[in-house]
Amino acid sequence: MSSTEKPQSQLPTSAIEKHSTKVADGWFEYIVRVHPHHTDYSGAVWHGTYIAWMEEARVESLRSLGIDYADLVALGCELPVVELSLRYHLAVKMGMTVVVRARLADKEGIKLDWDYQIQSLDGTELYVTARVTLVAVDREKGKIMRRLPQAVQDVLSKF
Amino acid sequence: MSSTEKPQSQLPTSAIEKHSTKVADGWFEYIVRVHPHHTDYSGAVWHGTYIAWMEEARVESLRSLGIDYADLVALGCELPVVELSLRYHLAVKMGMTVVVRARLADKEGIKLDWDYQIQSLDGTELYVTARVTLVAVDREKGKIMRRLPQAVQDVLSKF
Amino acid sequence: MSSTEKPQSQLPTSAIEKHSTKVADGWFEYIVRVHPHHTDYSGAVWHGTYIAWMEEARVESLRSLGIDYADLVALGCELPVVELSLRYHLAVKMGMTVVVRARLADKEGIKLDWDYQIQSLDGTELYVTARVTLVAVDREKGKIMRRLPQAVQDVLSKF
Amino acid sequence: MSSTEKPQSQLPTSAIEKHSTKVADGWFEYIVRVHPHHTDYSGAVWHGTYIAWMEEARVESLRSLGIDYADLVALGCELPVVELSLRYHLAVKMGMTVVVRARLADKEGIKLDWDYQIQSLDGTELYVTARVTLVAVDREKGKIMRRLPQAVQDVLSKF
Repeated sequence: MSSTEKPQSQLPTSAIEKHSTKVADGWFEYIVRVHPHHTDYSGAVWHGTYIAWMEEARVESLRSLGIDYADLVALGCELPVVELSLRYHLAVKMGMTVVVRARLADKEGIKLDWDYQIQSLDGTELYVTARVTLVAVDREKGKIMRRLPQAVQDVLSKF
Repeated sequence: MSSTEKPQSQLPTSAIEKHSTKVADGWFEYIVRVHPHHTDYSGAVWHGTYIAWMEEARVESLRSLGIDYADLVALGCELPVVELSLRYHLAVKMGMTVVVRARLADKEGIKLDWDYQIQSLDGTELYVTARVTLVAVDREKGKIMRRLPQAVQDVLSKF
Repeated sequence: MSSTEKPQSQLPTSAIEKHSTKVADGWFEYIVRVHPHHTDYSGAVWHGTYIAWMEEARVESLRSLGIDYADLVALGCELPVVELSLRYHLAVKMGMTVVVRARLADKEGIKLDWDYQIQSLDGTELYVTARVTLVAVDREKGKIMRRLPQAVQDVLSKF
Repeated sequence: MSSTEKPQSQLPTSAIEKHSTKVADGWFEYIVRVHPHHTDYSGAVWHGTYIAWMEEARVESLRSLGIDYADLVALGCELPVVELSLRYHLAVKMGMTVVVRARLADKEGIKLDWDYQIQSLDGTELYVTARVTLVAVDREKGKIMRRLPQAVQDVLSKF
């Protein structure tokens, strides 16, 4: 393939950061548009799709703090979900754009609790509220770690 | 829920447009970051995940031209995929950021052919090439339309 | 396409019922094998995948009682999820076969609570426990129904 | 959790084999029922969902021949998809039960071509035809293997 066919992207490397941002009170906002593959027969978002959006918002929130999840995994630490709960207040329909708000609510040893609110861009509609609990696991041993990796601890202590 | 808990998003409504853009030669670029739910046991993107990314790039490309797919559906016209082919050149790994490039390659009556290139941000790596064929279908009749809706035709004739 | 190329399936129509069954205490069992698309980079099942399995078990459980969910939807009634909670006890790895056990735990007006246990075939390992709450919604009005459709009520009252 | 709450499954370990079988001419049949999470806003199966079904049919087909894909991966060999093409003839709607027919069409060195037909149980409707090409990759080296692992070769040579 010649260089004409495979040109450098015209988008700055930072482009993806543009649709997420930190706001007051520790909330991180991540914007999602509803595409056909997010929906089911009802024309609204399938109830499991939100789990993927929440994961994306969490990973991007950590990245905004300087923690690259792929790097963390490469270093031998995973943050699997051990508990998950969602309340579905209002359906989100195809074509809509919503904000997934994520916030580290609590940190106790190797346990991290995240709160979520999925709402309309203008904040007048609340679609979903959720809570997710993660623990730090040592990939090699397959066991829960005694403490968070130092780099993660340093970053999260700023909260 | 009080207004303090459900504030207006700090992100401008246009934020999601920031990670996609039109470039030369009719290509539209859409940026995606690989999150855990995109991957499989191999640590790379599961081969079916690209279909979702390609749909998102196509829908956003149409939107950049003034065609809102959800509106089109509400007006009774769908654009289902009738043919799909992909070649996987190189694995995309977790944490990577890639550009999904989409271009309307051909238009013949109610048939639209799209070309795709999924590549690295700097354009030096090509991961996937693909082609997707859509046709316009009348939702109510469940039949292929004789011609594209006028609004769609007007927009696409500019290509 | 000739009849040689498109022959009747050798599988009896009832084949899919063979991997699910009713057991004591109202539990319904649904067997799933972990395929690559169910997993993530960790080699285990991605945490959102279970939501799909639980939906399948619930729909098949209703079917075993004589309620075809697609028919119900065609008649204008949906059963969307309004609450969901999961606890992840143990990772399920690629290639494993597990039992998704579902049971209608509670019925109060138009609200149905389902309990779940995802476990190993021999019952010695418990991977996930969950609860899901559904409500009956009138598709046309987009509103919660006053009461369950009579056919659903008749079936569920046998519990 | 007591033994009463975590009983052995009443389903025989072989239950999952019951909804797939080998038929004449090398075709393997795998039955799938369309659940809500398979569909999109149109009420029919989302076009990317078939990729997952085809993977399941392929993995179960290999298993019926004595090749457990998870074991193969554990031994250091993966079979990633390098080419994929699908033609969508007819929509598959929610609640329908279909047969995914898979057949190893060609084997050339470390390249395996699979043919697919997704059809109605009675064989009168053809929904999707597809072809998938896999290659054998050495997981550790991240490179295409020179030859298939002996165990795989032995099994496939029987075709």
